[in-house]
Amino acid sequence: MTDADDALAIAEVRLTPILVADPPLLNTQGVHQPYTPRLIIELTTEGGATGLGETYGDTKYLDLAQPLATALIGRSVTDLNGLPALAAEVCGDSSPSSQLRSSRGDPNAATGADAVDAGGLRGVQTAGKLRLSVLSGFEVACLDAWGRAAGLPVHALLGGKVRDRVEYGAYLFYRWAQHPGGRGERDDWGAALDPVGVVAQARRFADTYGFTSFKLKGGVFPPAREVAAIRALAAAFPGRPLRLDPNGAWSVATSLRVADALRDVLEYLEDPASGTDRMAQVAAGLRGAGPDGGRRRAGLPLATNMCVTTFDEIAEAFTRDAVQIVLCDHHYWGGLRRTRELAAVCRAFGVGLSMHSNTHLGISLAAMTQVAATVPDLVHACDTHYPWQTEDVLTERLAFRDGRVDVGDAPGLGVALDRDRLAALHRRWLADDGGLRDRDDAAAMRRADPGWTAPAVPRW
Amino acid sequence: MTDADDALAIAEVRLTPILVADPPLLNTQGVHQPYTPRLIIELTTEGGATGLGETYGDTKYLDLAQPLATALIGRSVTDLNGLPALAAEVCGDSSPSSQLRSSRGDPNAATGADAVDAGGLRGVQTAGKLRLSVLSGFEVACLDAWGRAAGLPVHALLGGKVRDRVEYGAYLFYRWAQHPGGRGERDDWGAALDPVGVVAQARRFADTYGFTSFKLKGGVFPPAREVAAIRALAAAFPGRPLRLDPNGAWSVATSLRVADALRDVLEYLEDPASGTDRMAQVAAGLRGAGPDGGRRRAGLPLATNMCVTTFDEIAEAFTRDAVQIVLCDHHYWGGLRRTRELAAVCRAFGVGLSMHSNTHLGISLAAMTQVAATVPDLVHACDTHYPWQTEDVLTERLAFRDGRVDVGDAPGLGVALDRDRLAALHRRWLADDGGLRDRDDAAAMRRADPGWTAPAVPRW
Repeated sequence: MTDADDALAIAEVRLTPILVADPPLLNTQGVHQPYTPRLIIELTTEGGATGLGETYGDTKYLDLAQPLATALIGRSVTDLNGLPALAAEVCGDSSPSSQLRSSRGDPNAATGADAVDAGGLRGVQTAGKLRLSVLSGFEVACLDAWGRAAGLPVHALLGGKVRDRVEYGAYLFYRWAQHPGGRGERDDWGAALDPVGVVAQARRFADTYGFTSFKLKGGVFPPAREVAAIRALAAAFPGRPLRLDPNGAWSVATSLRVADALRDVLEYLEDPASGTDRMAQVAAGLRGAGPDGGRRRAGLPLATNMCVTTFDEIAEAFTRDAVQIVLCDHHYWGGLRRTRELAAVCRAFGVGLSMHSNTHLGISLAAMTQVAATVPDLVHACDTHYPWQTEDVLTERLAFRDGRVDVGDAPGLGVALDRDRLAALHRRWLADDGGLRDRDDAAAMRRADPGWTAPAVPRW
Repeated sequence: MTDADDALAIAEVRLTPILVADPPLLNTQGVHQPYTPRLIIELTTEGGATGLGETYGDTKYLDLAQPLATALIGRSVTDLNGLPALAAEVCGDSSPSSQLRSSRGDPNAATGADAVDAGGLRGVQTAGKLRLSVLSGFEVACLDAWGRAAGLPVHALLGGKVRDRVEYGAYLFYRWAQHPGGRGERDDWGAALDPVGVVAQARRFADTYGFTSFKLKGGVFPPAREVAAIRALAAAFPGRPLRLDPNGAWSVATSLRVADALRDVLEYLEDPASGTDRMAQVAAGLRGAGPDGGRRRAGLPLATNMCVTTFDEIAEAFTRDAVQIVLCDHHYWGGLRRTRELAAVCRAFGVGLSMHSNTHLGISLAAMTQVAATVPDLVHACDTHYPWQTEDVLTERLAFRDGRVDVGDAPGLGVALDRDRLAALHRRWLADDGGLRDRDDAAAMRRADPGWTAPAVPRW
């Protein structure tokens, strides 16, 4: 460790789990809970610089974050290449699969053998995927602290921005007016359960934030109903990029039927079917002739945030041309630097890149914006849930203008923590006795439909 | 630009072309010249930090370096993602192919359409490849200056080292005792033109530097003679990793015959045949049954530094499994950060990584060592010509111990320029009237063999 590294050594790490308000947004597994757990990471260097990070806050993530936080003490915030090995070491990694991968030098890799929880919207969850999601919050906090210490924005630590603003799209959801039983915080968006509601929601997003791309979370209603919603959006916003994401709910045949019905208006179709094999079949179908004979369906790319969410999942998907756009998520991929590595892999294979979002706050939006600004070929508007999150832990919310977030040049992420707000959201987490500390969209749905279980795929 | 960036803004760039002594090393195209051109790049920031870079010094590289140096004035040394676009802009990039790629956001890409010079040992040379090789020297200089300003080693700017020493291998060459006509500097290595000479050379490398891996540059003599040399090495150094690199001189059939003859002793076979298609055929042959019937030839990987030297060349080669190891070279790939991106692509596809070398000095060896230290899965010993280069521009030469170079933690690259030495080597460049400013191994060979022309491939 050099002298400069001494000042950059991590002296303290503080972990604060919180519950943040979430509207009743519907997806194929159920509905968002009234409150969603997030973990806020603060670290301080020996030199006095602070860094912020944010990631998932469910119990299984907290269980991994605590030993990693302890292990980080004394290490430099610049020592980022060593994080995956450190995380594997302190978080436990004894599966045969992981050992095999470790011997190849990629201790953060994980395959099916160490799956800890089947299900969710990200394909099979594995210990490795969980670890990367935890690690990502620490990586962002390290970069924030390093940037603050150096007087440089995070994008400079990533090689510098190539654009001054990052474009985001409107993330439309079927939703209820309020949570079952009136739980949680109220908002004035009202219900959106049909094409009229979806278009009204889109209109408000466009008017308020200036978004010009629109993505509808699908997989909620039978496909014909969702096709009708996209058609209504196309009529209301002619020529605008539209996307539909049923989270893998459809069969290959259904996926191709929807593609045929919407190919003239969709920018891309996201995860119509579940798993690389089905996606490859859909992609092959789209490359073939359509049902109208000689006219080819080529031109409608498939995007994914489900079948390609780790580096291990890339080779098969790219070799089979199963996906044409990867929606990266720095939480999933293990941080901002690995997001840039993913961008390099995609670029080499002519696969497009955009950005996925799950419920997140301003720290993560700042991180997403900083890294997106450094990737030349990120040409699709990024996803973000941020407009749905009325609560945040920052002194000042990030703003969308013309659907874009300015890429700040302030040191680090350029955001500041509101400690009172953080404490209040932490108190909510401490007080929770409603089982909200672990997000479970199916359980939330059972509040309205007691017999509900997350549907098997393909659902339609 | 932030305040910190103001101090990191580039105030001055100095380019010094030099000629460095090179021994009469043989390859399939000819022989090294008595002196090889290199370009030394020095930049100084507004804050007074200096940075060193090194790259090819041939005229066509100098022609690109000058406008790039001018364009860099005022930019931050952290602004590295913008370098390729800047280089494309100031170096001229008007070919249809390049324009097409630029629209995809990768202005540094280049394909056959803008080829400027067919031949050489790196496949087709293109304007894009030349530009990346120039750019790489500036990227290293920027990182060196940034590290010196921040008090951090370059490896920290790349995310931190994961090892304290980087292993290199002995780079064995068929060679003459001296250059034709006695030109150039003398050395005491003597000739190595047969198995006995090759083994003696390897022994001296092992004794002097501690190297335990050995690579023979082949493609010089008929394959049977080179097979005999490898067999002699295997007998002299049992169990040691051995490699043979004929620079694409062989046909597919010859490549498979050599592979059969040496599969029990080679760590890998490097570029036996020229081009991705031939390499894919050789790889397919190696995956099939050998000439002795059921016994498979699997287990002998193919390495390349010729058919995969840009990101554009990856997809076909990896999809066809044409190569199992890529020998990266930060000069070719556009710098240390892009070398790390290449590592990520290789990792995702299960392709191994090691490092190529061409005639280079200590600045580049320091850069190679810093980046190699950050790549967890760089498990093969790297190539280096450095022991052949008795001249350098540093105050202190880098040292090999146990075949390894220590990964320094001094700020930047941790090396210092010897201005007197630099001036002397520059005077040699200024005085050159022997056509040495542009390396031409075939022309050098004609000094001994007036009828020589670089052979067409496959040569055997």
